[in-house]
Amino acid sequence: MSFKDATLAEVDAAMNEAHVAFLSYKNFDGKKRAAFLRAIADEIEALGDELVKTAMGETALPEARIIGERGRTTGHCRMFADYIEEGSWVEARIDTAMPDRTPAPKPDIRKKLVPLGPVVVFGAANFPLAYSTAGGDTASALAAGCPVIVKAHPAHAKTSELVAGAIKKAMGKTGMPAGVFQHLHGAGFEVGQALVKHPRASAVGFTGSYLGGKALFDMANQRPTPIPVFAEMSSTNPVILLPDSLARDYEQTAGMLASSMVLGVGQFCTNPGLIFAVEGDGLGQFIKHLSAAISKSLPAEMLHEGIARNYVKRLSETLSQKGVKLEVQAQAESKVGDKDQGRPTVASVQAPVFMENPSLAEEVFGPFSLIVRCKDMNELNTVMARVHGQLTSTLIGGEKEIAKHTNLINILMGKAGRLIINGVPTGVEVCPSQNHGGPFPSTTDSRFTAVGTDAIKRFARPVAFQNFPDSLLPDELKNANDKGIWRVVNGEMTRKGLG
Amino acid sequence: MSFKDATLAEVDAAMNEAHVAFLSYKNFDGKKRAAFLRAIADEIEALGDELVKTAMGETALPEARIIGERGRTTGHCRMFADYIEEGSWVEARIDTAMPDRTPAPKPDIRKKLVPLGPVVVFGAANFPLAYSTAGGDTASALAAGCPVIVKAHPAHAKTSELVAGAIKKAMGKTGMPAGVFQHLHGAGFEVGQALVKHPRASAVGFTGSYLGGKALFDMANQRPTPIPVFAEMSSTNPVILLPDSLARDYEQTAGMLASSMVLGVGQFCTNPGLIFAVEGDGLGQFIKHLSAAISKSLPAEMLHEGIARNYVKRLSETLSQKGVKLEVQAQAESKVGDKDQGRPTVASVQAPVFMENPSLAEEVFGPFSLIVRCKDMNELNTVMARVHGQLTSTLIGGEKEIAKHTNLINILMGKAGRLIINGVPTGVEVCPSQNHGGPFPSTTDSRFTAVGTDAIKRFARPVAFQNFPDSLLPDELKNANDKGIWRVVNGEMTRKGLG
Repeated sequence: MSFKDATLAEVDAAMNEAHVAFLSYKNFDGKKRAAFLRAIADEIEALGDELVKTAMGETALPEARIIGERGRTTGHCRMFADYIEEGSWVEARIDTAMPDRTPAPKPDIRKKLVPLGPVVVFGAANFPLAYSTAGGDTASALAAGCPVIVKAHPAHAKTSELVAGAIKKAMGKTGMPAGVFQHLHGAGFEVGQALVKHPRASAVGFTGSYLGGKALFDMANQRPTPIPVFAEMSSTNPVILLPDSLARDYEQTAGMLASSMVLGVGQFCTNPGLIFAVEGDGLGQFIKHLSAAISKSLPAEMLHEGIARNYVKRLSETLSQKGVKLEVQAQAESKVGDKDQGRPTVASVQAPVFMENPSLAEEVFGPFSLIVRCKDMNELNTVMARVHGQLTSTLIGGEKEIAKHTNLINILMGKAGRLIINGVPTGVEVCPSQNHGGPFPSTTDSRFTAVGTDAIKRFARPVAFQNFPDSLLPDELKNANDKGIWRVVNGEMTRKGLG
Repeated sequence: MSFKDATLAEVDAAMNEAHVAFLSYKNFDGKKRAAFLRAIADEIEALGDELVKTAMGETALPEARIIGERGRTTGHCRMFADYIEEGSWVEARIDTAMPDRTPAPKPDIRKKLVPLGPVVVFGAANFPLAYSTAGGDTASALAAGCPVIVKAHPAHAKTSELVAGAIKKAMGKTGMPAGVFQHLHGAGFEVGQALVKHPRASAVGFTGSYLGGKALFDMANQRPTPIPVFAEMSSTNPVILLPDSLARDYEQTAGMLASSMVLGVGQFCTNPGLIFAVEGDGLGQFIKHLSAAISKSLPAEMLHEGIARNYVKRLSETLSQKGVKLEVQAQAESKVGDKDQGRPTVASVQAPVFMENPSLAEEVFGPFSLIVRCKDMNELNTVMARVHGQLTSTLIGGEKEIAKHTNLINILMGKAGRLIINGVPTGVEVCPSQNHGGPFPSTTDSRFTAVGTDAIKRFARPVAFQNFPDSLLPDELKNANDKGIWRVVNGEMTRKGLG
């Protein structure tokens, strides 16, 4: 089934309708917006098997994965519902007046976050549910008070259409204005471009390739009125294996990393694409066990033909670089490409060669990892200091050995948005402490996250109210603090009301 | 006295030195960084009269203003010292592990803000102290843990040099690394460009013209690795006079606004450049009293020749537009331009003419205000809905009359970063509730503020730590919470430690 691309007139109408919806939606209280988000979760569940089967058919992802992703999607809708209903997210700050202060009186000023305006969200190829139509971008924007216009990903347009239908049902049941959520198709670039360039667009959320995200970022910055783009783009998620621990734990480490590499056919933004280790027996044993696991793993169909073709191309480019040694490659069931299969592959390279060839540091989207062989920890530190921005970085080693390398933790803090010890980067827990973001090129702005409650901050801005009578203040800033939200009052965090 | 422009080699050396300083400075605890900020305040005070006289000589600002601005500068250094010493600013979030959760265990994740890296700060022409060398950008970046490289404003280079000397003394007294603060001169564009384009730069702070700020924003976005620019640029700070109240309070309103217009020769980013009112006797009386006050006010020397020349040019362009009527202009003491004098001026225009001519909505930097005459409140609402982004917007009227126009407050919330009732936009209190920011073109990113404690957020990014042993976590995230900072632990705000 294919859908008609939106026309430019339809894009314009959608953006204008989103603007009109914003004028009322932005003033709905947290309770009302929360009811909407919970209804979205309910309606997605009510789609039942049809959604699961449609998503499986469009993405080649297995049933358990789609069911898990659906749980994550309804989970984040309900998480944001709870979060905005509680209300402290608006970061209320109150400084009361001091009319007698000299040399000048101090006015009463109060501040809180308000929504930015209509947000354009791009569905992601690799997560048909959790990063798409009702994904984290949509849920956090709706939670903030922003209407959303989704550009469906063409690779799972029918899944997107189903979820959009669920959201529209939820709108009807909870009395939302018509333009609060809109859904457009666009197989080429035109629809996305027109949305990002439209004067009524206030922000953009995107998960996908570096080329796609960077193009949207540039387009948004070159508008007469630039708007913020949060694009999550490209990350190789370095994993560092500390030598003394590796000499002991090579087998367990190999097993853990092999599973992470092939999970979802390597199609996660947090897939471990680079592994750094020091030469020695431990590394040799690690590669032996990793190779055994990878050679036994089955190739699997990738999300869509374009991704599979790109994987084959990037893999062959990488393997043909000077100094790159193929360590292991899973056997294909048939000729590569025929069935859009991604063959799990591991290669290795010496650190000096890696440092001289920047293309080796770039993401190969799929089940591929490159092991960078360092002659010692000094060389490993040197090469890590040159790696570009990442979503995650992982250290594997015993606590005592890691404690000897806090300098490395220091380096990694500057490189990545999330540091992991003795775990794998895949698996992004949705919770307040999560940071799914990181320095460029992993995202376009390292100060924000795409996952977790703080994702809402991408779509909100502070407004201060000076010398307002209590009756004219927004509820969150009135003296009474009826909802008992956390506020900073004259420098002190409190849930108490004033006077 | 004039200073030599920095060479490109000096820019490169400064940025590299800042990077080296960052490697240690970012790990200094809040107490140590606070001592440095307090020492800066002390050393600025220790400059005594020399600083005041130098700044007066370079800027033509009167002694009381310079002394006031010095107080604000030392004040925000000490405010940020207190803020980071207390420590809750890092926004700690902790979600503890649930190893038995099904279908997958939940890992322990903890998050806090860390500094971005070296920040390039541009001294502002209109605030030789509070928005320059030790201004809010510098103080908030140093507080966050970022080294600062200041490009001195050439119009007050000697003042800047004195303050830089004070900061360097403070560095020596508190054991700071050499590159934590550096000071460069540059009369043209080359030095600023080289700083913003340097690979070691992580962020930029700027207060000044739209052309200057937008050029830096574009330059930073076009780097191979884009960096965030917070540029505070251009605002006309609309003031709306509600008709029923104006019919009663015209005299008082005229007096209040006349003072705000001519304050600092109109050279504030929050100067009231546009006044919106409904035609009628009240408006007539208001203009009569405003004109009386303005005609009695004395022209005064502007900050520097370039600003004065630009004011004369923009003023004459504006006054020559079709439909613009000159209402009053203060008498010059001598031929305009001879003494870089800014003559306070008020003009008026009908709303339909204003809406047809976008140049009338643009800032005339100096003591000029344009009154936009609306035939009724409907027309006033229409014209306000078309005004572009602003730092502030002000409503003047009785509480009962304002309560009838909450739709207007709603419109203004979408337009400005700070709303004021029955006050003037000039005067920016430095406190947690302050928002000195707003939608484009008033700033380049409406999600941040240049003034108040939240200004620190421009220069920090979150990092999550997953599965870290307590001993390897940053102090703010350890179980004990020795400093008793506010943290969100498993969704609850608390100062308690864990376990």
